[in-house]
Formats: sequence, C-alpha cells, structure tokens
Amino acid sequence: MFEIAPLSTSFSALITNKINNKTKPLGALGKLEFLAVTLAEIYSDNAGAWQQTLEITQPNLIVFAADHGIAAHGVSIAPSEVTQQMVMNFANGGAAINVFTRQCHWQLTVVDAGILVPVAESLGVLNQRLGAGTQAIHLQDAMTTAEVIKGFELAKSLVAEKHQQGCNLIAFGEMGIGNTSSASALMAVILNLSAADAVGRGTGISDNVFKHKIKLVQQAVDRIKVSQPTPNEPITLLAQLGGFEIVQICGAMLAAAELKIPIVVDGFICSAAAMVAKLINTHVSDYLIFSHASGEQGHAAMLDWFDAEPLLDLDLRLGEGTGAALSLPLIMAACGFYNDMASFESAQVDDVVTNQ
Amino acid sequence: MFEIAPLSTSFSALITNKINNKTKPLGALGKLEFLAVTLAEIYSDNAGAWQQTLEITQPNLIVFAADHGIAAHGVSIAPSEVTQQMVMNFANGGAAINVFTRQCHWQLTVVDAGILVPVAESLGVLNQRLGAGTQAIHLQDAMTTAEVIKGFELAKSLVAEKHQQGCNLIAFGEMGIGNTSSASALMAVILNLSAADAVGRGTGISDNVFKHKIKLVQQAVDRIKVSQPTPNEPITLLAQLGGFEIVQICGAMLAAAELKIPIVVDGFICSAAAMVAKLINTHVSDYLIFSHASGEQGHAAMLDWFDAEPLLDLDLRLGEGTGAALSLPLIMAACGFYNDMASFESAQVDDVVTNQ
Repeated sequence: MFEIAPLSTSFSALITNKINNKTKPLGALGKLEFLAVTLAEIYSDNAGAWQQTLEITQPNLIVFAADHGIAAHGVSIAPSEVTQQMVMNFANGGAAINVFTRQCHWQLTVVDAGILVPVAESLGVLNQRLGAGTQAIHLQDAMTTAEVIKGFELAKSLVAEKHQQGCNLIAFGEMGIGNTSSASALMAVILNLSAADAVGRGTGISDNVFKHKIKLVQQAVDRIKVSQPTPNEPITLLAQLGGFEIVQICGAMLAAAELKIPIVVDGFICSAAAMVAKLINTHVSDYLIFSHASGEQGHAAMLDWFDAEPLLDLDLRLGEGTGAALSLPLIMAACGFYNDMASFESAQVDDVVTNQ
Repeated sequence: MFEIAPLSTSFSALITNKINNKTKPLGALGKLEFLAVTLAEIYSDNAGAWQQTLEITQPNLIVFAADHGIAAHGVSIAPSEVTQQMVMNFANGGAAINVFTRQCHWQLTVVDAGILVPVAESLGVLNQRLGAGTQAIHLQDAMTTAEVIKGFELAKSLVAEKHQQGCNLIAFGEMGIGNTSSASALMAVILNLSAADAVGRGTGISDNVFKHKIKLVQQAVDRIKVSQPTPNEPITLLAQLGGFEIVQICGAMLAAAELKIPIVVDGFICSAAAMVAKLINTHVSDYLIFSHASGEQGHAAMLDWFDAEPLLDLDLRLGEGTGAALSLPLIMAACGFYNDMASFESAQVDDVVTNQ
C-alpha cells in the first residue's frame, strides 16, 4: 500500500560542503546542522537536484482524536468525555496546540478518527471516523484489520490533499483519553518489554491507578501473545492494540514518506505510531524528524530504538502535537542558516576551519 | 553601582493558579511552565500588579565584540583578525546571529567593546571601545579596574536606552577570538577548578593547541592567586582575567536586572559574565533565563552553579548569542500559553486536574 524509497545520499557531499563553508567553526551549530542535512537531502532527493535553498511551504500539523475502550476501566485521571471536550477546545482555538501552531505558523487540521460521540459538523473537524471508540484492548482486539486498512486509506488521502496544497513539512498530534495505554502496549510488544517498563503516568495518575494501568496493559500484551504467534505483523498488531488515531497517524506517516515529505514526530503516542510504521516499511525513518523527548516514561526507549536525538527536551507530556509544534522555529532556523548565512569567501572571513 | 531588588514572589500563587487551570494536565508543559512563572513574576513585580497577560516588547539582543591578548599566544584556530572580520559579517547581516535574530524577530545591536582595529563608522557598529584588545591574561592583568568600571557605565547606558525604547526582554552575545580562554580562567577561579576542568576546545582546536590552552589558562589562574589574596573580589577579577566584551555583558546583565528586565543568557562566555555578575549582586540570578546548554566543556558546571536547567540542548558552540536567539520562540510560547490557552471553565472541559 505504501512504496517508500530509501532517501538518496547522492547530494550529501554538496550539502555538507555548503554547510562547512558557512562563517562558523566546523559543526558549531550542533543538532541544527544534522537537521539541515536531513532536510536538504530530502528536498534535493525529491527535486532530483541539489537544493541550495530550503523553503518550508504550508507546514501542516494534523491532530487525530479518538477514544479508547480501555479508558472505561480506570487507567486515566480523565473520563472519555474529555476527548470530545478537548476536540471542541481545539475547534474553538483554546488548547495548547492552537496557541503554539498559531505562534509558529503551522496550519492546524483537526480530525475525528473515532471519538465516542462526534462533534457538530459546523465546528470544522474532519470526519474520518473508524468507529465510536475502540474495544478495550486488555479484553479483545481494539478493531478489525479492515478498520486499520480503512484508517490507512483515509490518512493517505488526507496527506495527499495537503501535499497537493503545497505542504512540504508535516506533523501529527493526537488526543484520546486512554491512548498512552495503547501506545505502551504496542511498545511493550515491539521492544519485548514488560508493561511496567513501558507504562508511564500519562496525564498524571496516582500510584494506585498507575499499578492498575500496568496490570491492564500487561493483560493486553499477554492476550495477544496467546492468540498471535507472530506478534510483529504490524497491521494485526495495530488491530489488536492500537487506537483509531494511532492507526491514522501511522498511515499518514507512511503516506508522507512515500511523497518524500519530512515528518515531524511528536512524543510518546506519535513515536509508537512511527514504530509500527517502521515495521511496515523501514525506510519511513529516513523522513522522520524527532521533535522532542517526552516526559512520559518509555519515550526514551522508543527514541533509542530509532537511534534518534530529538531537538527539544522540555519535559512536555501533553501530547496534541505540542512538542512537534514547538520545534518548527528550530526547523526554520536550520533552513535559515543553510540558506542565508554567508560563506567564508562571500564574507571575506579567514577560512581557518576547512583549511586547518 | 547597581541596586537590584530580589524578585518578589507575592504574585506567585495567582500565577500558578492561572497556569494550573489551563486545559492540560498539571505540569504537562514542563519547562515552559517554569518559564511562564518566571516571566509572570518579573513582569508582575515590575508593574506592581499581577499580570494576566505577558507581552514581550522590543526584544533586543546585543552582541559585544572584543579582542584578547592571549589570542596571539596560540590558543585558538583563528587569528584575532577574525574578530573584526566577523564584526563586519554581523554588520552586513551574514552571520548565524543575523539569520536567527531576523527569523525570531529579535532586534540586533552590535557593539565594538574593544576589538584590535575598529570597523568603519558607516557600518553602524556602536563604539563602546575600552581599548584595542586586552593584555594577555597569562602574563598580566587584562585591563585596569577603571576600564572595568567604564565598561559597566557604557553597558548600563546602553541597556537604559533600550529600556526607554520599550525593550522588556534582553539577551547578550559575544564575539572575540580567545574569549573562551578568558571565560575558562574566570570560571576556574570562581569554582576553584583546575584549568583542565574549565578549558574546552572553543571553536575546535587540535589536541596540541588544547594542551597549550590549558597551560596558559592555568598560568593565568596561578598568576592572580599569587597577586590577589581574595580572588573573588569580582571587579578585580574581571580586570585580571576578563575581556572587554565580558565586562560589558556583566555590566549589562546587572543593569537589566536593576530595571527588572528578564535576561536571556547565551552559552559559555555569557554564563561566565553572569557568574561574575552574581558575585557582584546575587539577586541578578532572579532575572536570568538560561537559553541553552553549550557544547563547550565547562558550561555544565556553570549551569550547576546557578542550579539552572536551560531551555535548549542543541550542542551549539558558536557563541554570538545564537543559543539565546533560538530560545525566543520558546519564550513566546510560554507567554502564549499563559495568555491564550483556555481554562477548564472557559472551554467547558472537565477539570479532572485541580479537583483530583
């Protein structure tokens, strides 16, 4: 369903040479230099020619919201109703993701991927519902594989539409009470961890709820290990343990990589979706930019699995795509220095760097 | 010369309550929440009333450039001429700090605090020269205490001028071949470290130059320990081991704190200036926002001394104020969520956070 080419490195030498001739010590812009290389490689590969200027156009951040059956079993501080309330908050512009996308000039798209009760159409939330919340994953499969495929198709269409509108940088966010349980279960299976090593406190649960959450996630993991002899078959895995928003984020990442659009990865939930995407097609990771290290326990192990060093470490644990949103100025800065900084030659500064 | 009031915490409860009622889990915005508290406390204290809206006006980043006598003794990859060349690069808009301040909407001011040969007046670089480079600190005092005082006065006037123009957030940057040697020596004395623990590779020196740099910095530290029985007398310390740009940054920080302007601290050199400022008046640290953890060895120990957790960790080691510049979007984000995020009540979201 997704044909993703590995990222070409045929322009890497030109890109690195351009960066090393900027008026600065070699490597002195640290992570921004690696970021500039990644962006230049993707855009050059996409254009089929070395890009001397990197321009971010129509950056889009898509928040997928969905509900989770496990939320009715006491794993969160909030009831599932809060998912819908927060979707309305997004629609009304009052959530953190609204503030940050406005400030950083991301376009924001809000998608109902399957919350319990849909919001009024007039609110402008896209309807890509796969159902009214998933089944409780500790008791049964979250959804059918047909629903996973349908989610992929919907996500792929949406990404294609954004691409046609000129979007060349994309990020995803999520809202769904209970979705850290789903992400933890996916992670536990993929990394072969116990639930205790994968589960965190999500939105800030008490010790008792934390213990209960670990128990239910372990139950979910144990359940599929019985029924599924090859647990890493990723579509099946999503059907067993995923969420409607996680499925669509996974599909959207694969679709974006297919179109050679750099993908800004938010925190714990989005990284879980990215892990499944990588199981489906390993080349997706060539297009991933990890925006931040989440405060949620377990995210560090995910980042290690990707061998990723995220841009930000602000101890965020909000989701919604907030970490991704906050990283856009750094992405713009990487493009900015690549495009606009003088070279030693143009600025008539002694090149003590590349000549040493 | 500087009367700095400790930051009042009389508005802290109101500020924290406002933040905790935002539509997010408690503390979920991590470091941005601490940042918002600091900014709200400073602006509220300054206004004498609780500020429900935080507005950054006319943010200014001032780059101070100067030359260092020790640079003629083989401690850097670059000759002192590069300081002037980079000042011209700043004036022409081609350096990293130009790119980042343009992108992040900082106003940029470039000051000649004492480079070897001044640039043409037409370039718009402010003349606040304390001399044509300092003396080599491993052989003699960098400057006189009268020059330190003159530097403080010039810096104080400049900050006052920016303040009168409406600037309510300020950052400093620096350029000066050899200035990591000066900063390392200051740090070694203040933290009672050996030069080997304070000296880093600056712009990227070889092993041999690195060893030589450690030797000269240790010589500078040993020299003043003989001549100066109370090495922590900060004005004397600056005269002995400082640089003209470090002196003016130190004075500018004290001046900004006196005016209750939040100060965004860049990396290694600016943190060394901040350490001396804190020795002069401990309350200055109430107004400091540490923007980033530098890639330069030694910065971590400085941050520990301040008990500071910087916003960014991008492995930058460029100076110029680049780390400070890149942190402005996060500062704006902290103001943005404080100002514009909905409360549980206004968004009609169940308050499961403050009621739990």
